[in-house]
Amino acid sequence: MSFQRKLQLATDFYQLSMGNVYYLDNKKDQIAVFDLFIRKNPCDGGYTIAAGLEQIIEYIEQLHFDDEDIALLKKNHPEFDENYLKYLRNFSFSGEIYAVPEGTIVFPNEPIIRVKAPLIQAQLIETTMLTIINHQSLIATKASRIVDAADGGTVLEFGLRRAHGSEAGLYGARAAIIGGCAGTSNVESEYLIEIPSKGTMSHSLVQSYDSELEAFRNYAKYNPNNLILLVDTYDTLNSGVPNAIKIFQELREKNQLGDTYGIRLDSGDLAYLSKTARKMLDQAGFADAIISASSDLDEYIIRDLKLQGATIDSWGVGTKMITSYDCPALGAVYKLSQIEEKGQVKPKIKISNDVIKITNPGYKKVVRFYDRNSHMALADLILLDDEKIDEKEPLEIFDPICTWKRKVLTNFYAKELLIPIFVNGKKVYQSPNIKEIQNYVKHQKQFIGEEYRRALNPHIYHVDLSEKLWNLKQQLIHQER
Amino acid sequence: MSFQRKLQLATDFYQLSMGNVYYLDNKKDQIAVFDLFIRKNPCDGGYTIAAGLEQIIEYIEQLHFDDEDIALLKKNHPEFDENYLKYLRNFSFSGEIYAVPEGTIVFPNEPIIRVKAPLIQAQLIETTMLTIINHQSLIATKASRIVDAADGGTVLEFGLRRAHGSEAGLYGARAAIIGGCAGTSNVESEYLIEIPSKGTMSHSLVQSYDSELEAFRNYAKYNPNNLILLVDTYDTLNSGVPNAIKIFQELREKNQLGDTYGIRLDSGDLAYLSKTARKMLDQAGFADAIISASSDLDEYIIRDLKLQGATIDSWGVGTKMITSYDCPALGAVYKLSQIEEKGQVKPKIKISNDVIKITNPGYKKVVRFYDRNSHMALADLILLDDEKIDEKEPLEIFDPICTWKRKVLTNFYAKELLIPIFVNGKKVYQSPNIKEIQNYVKHQKQFIGEEYRRALNPHIYHVDLSEKLWNLKQQLIHQER
Repeated sequence: MSFQRKLQLATDFYQLSMGNVYYLDNKKDQIAVFDLFIRKNPCDGGYTIAAGLEQIIEYIEQLHFDDEDIALLKKNHPEFDENYLKYLRNFSFSGEIYAVPEGTIVFPNEPIIRVKAPLIQAQLIETTMLTIINHQSLIATKASRIVDAADGGTVLEFGLRRAHGSEAGLYGARAAIIGGCAGTSNVESEYLIEIPSKGTMSHSLVQSYDSELEAFRNYAKYNPNNLILLVDTYDTLNSGVPNAIKIFQELREKNQLGDTYGIRLDSGDLAYLSKTARKMLDQAGFADAIISASSDLDEYIIRDLKLQGATIDSWGVGTKMITSYDCPALGAVYKLSQIEEKGQVKPKIKISNDVIKITNPGYKKVVRFYDRNSHMALADLILLDDEKIDEKEPLEIFDPICTWKRKVLTNFYAKELLIPIFVNGKKVYQSPNIKEIQNYVKHQKQFIGEEYRRALNPHIYHVDLSEKLWNLKQQLIHQER
Repeated sequence: MSFQRKLQLATDFYQLSMGNVYYLDNKKDQIAVFDLFIRKNPCDGGYTIAAGLEQIIEYIEQLHFDDEDIALLKKNHPEFDENYLKYLRNFSFSGEIYAVPEGTIVFPNEPIIRVKAPLIQAQLIETTMLTIINHQSLIATKASRIVDAADGGTVLEFGLRRAHGSEAGLYGARAAIIGGCAGTSNVESEYLIEIPSKGTMSHSLVQSYDSELEAFRNYAKYNPNNLILLVDTYDTLNSGVPNAIKIFQELREKNQLGDTYGIRLDSGDLAYLSKTARKMLDQAGFADAIISASSDLDEYIIRDLKLQGATIDSWGVGTKMITSYDCPALGAVYKLSQIEEKGQVKPKIKISNDVIKITNPGYKKVVRFYDRNSHMALADLILLDDEKIDEKEPLEIFDPICTWKRKVLTNFYAKELLIPIFVNGKKVYQSPNIKEIQNYVKHQKQFIGEEYRRALNPHIYHVDLSEKLWNLKQQLIHQER
């Protein structure tokens, strides 16, 4: 497109407007701590897959404002101070960022990114980080739910045309792969994630020939090795499947039938059609023909189709994955938790009548406890950064709201979730490749109990506060009210 | 970001895969006609606002494949013919595109873009056009619904952090302005649509000071002319509003209170809080203070709040507009309707068991009928391109499914909706600016009956087929079955 993106300005105006105040009020270099966290898992599910860190790193590394940006801001916002604009012209991020690695399974209220930086800097990067992580984590989580429903079946991402623009399609495809999809139809993603895109034919190809059979025969001629024929242009069972079988027979006779061949169903009742098509294919001697299906699929429909014995090997999922249709936004937030003023460290809190929305103060870390024998995740704990966990001693954890709900952990080990990404403005982390991230997701799922991963009404995984943090929080609440 | 976008590859793989077949099978230059149309209005509403044409034009104009693209395709897709790849390397669009101007109010099943081009070209541009128009039309329509609910109140787009990535935020902001929003918080949009972005302060600014009052006072010092104070960081009615009033009083005493000042509510019961805050402000002598509100708003909540007398002047709408939360995808499709083979023109149809999904064949146009006196829109008619409407004669139109539903139009005039955008690959159209598009939307709404614009359960606007087109369709259906 002729419009040249300006990611440094892909932010809310108030970030720049507050920056002006921080600058003029001599607050810009106060060291602030912000936590980025979600409040609710997508789709009323039990977990969220954090995704988008690689793009956040790229954003932070390249964040600067050029002369054109400064001129634009000056023209449109005369209230901005000249020296503030000069400051922006020379802006670069000099702070610290810790984050969970991409693909980490996370839960509400625990920091998944922690920023410690001069106030003006930490503030300025809020919106863009949220935009990236909200989008990719949402789609990765949705994809993971769909992949779980397919229960070993192949899931392909086919949603580009229904994505919120082509960039949403691209990074949505990336997130879908992280969540466990085997591939995507998105060709541009070949540059981003280096996996060949997939796909076969549309109805228009079939229509463009005088007959379905002629269309199949010509398509097969040029695609002998990945021959998935779309069978629903005219009449699936009376025309599409019989014609496909005819082509497979012709190819077999000529010894040209490849390893990957089959049909795609794109409308109608997929349970009935797949079972009937399976029989027809089997009876014709094509037991290894693949049946793939697409048509407004999501985790709920896939699960129901499988419950009714649908014989579908490969699921092409579009609209409902690329938009996370039943829950199209993840509401991660970014909250100030501490600020230093004249050398004095002040933990900060945001009060709300809704108790779950009161933020956790201070400079914090997160640990995940695992059982020493089964290696299953037991609970997560948010604690102040200087607190230590003694793995040799029993540890009592408690629900931060219903504090009488208590549990003693024994025979556990603890892993810190947040790792350093930027230190003093320098990147200290190398992003893994997409396959590594996908494998990391798959690996973790084995150690998060299936009751937490149930699609509907899952068990709630515990994210507790350390006693020290809980006490600090109570103290600040009383101070403010 | 360091990733360099490749919009020419922002497509589904099957477009390129079918291109290979068309090329090798000598079909690439068959002249094909495709219609792009929606099947359903967003949010079960009565209309859709077509948006995104400007970006589609930019895409088509710049569409070509560079050496790097060809090398990538060759590496990942060894089935692609060498000569086909050479063809792609020299690709440029040489066809014809007609479309409705941006901002046109459209209805299901009528072509909003019509492409007539060599088959391989018309096929190749499908996905990207759909992606762009599905996204922007969705958000423009959602914004229009929300603006209607605000009933004269100001609506601002605040959703970037919940958009599906920053590009979705940017073009979503553009679409929201088209739909009637007065502004957006998205700073990058200043480059795209040349309207200054808007916003004030977040909770973190308030928290970063030792007290709310101190935060307000300092913010006011540097923002005297657009002073909207966020009052819910600690306690809206007991702290936020009284502190805001204190600041307004201080400024008034010093004669520094600007024209635009007021408060923003961001949580709690907005009806109760706004009415109470209004009284407090009025009693303190600040009757012209603005009350703005944000907090998970959409057209349904805004309407309900207004029904209960909420005194809110300005609505900041985020998540639910930028994602069209209750309906996050628009399902526009792109269907082959005609192909020429060896000089013979063949209208084409896609059959479906679902009668509404059977496509309309042929090279078609769309007219909208208006009443000569009231200028209200009466109905739309899809007809073959060579058909003529005689405005002087009564015209009988009929429902294409329930054909016994008939209506005779008299005293009408007809306007064609599709206008030429590309002819012989050359752009013949100049996009209007965003304000013109916004005004065009606003203008049309006056002439589309309010029963069609009702948010819930609207009356269905008629989109009929001419008798000639209807006959052609029936003939093809019988031929195929």
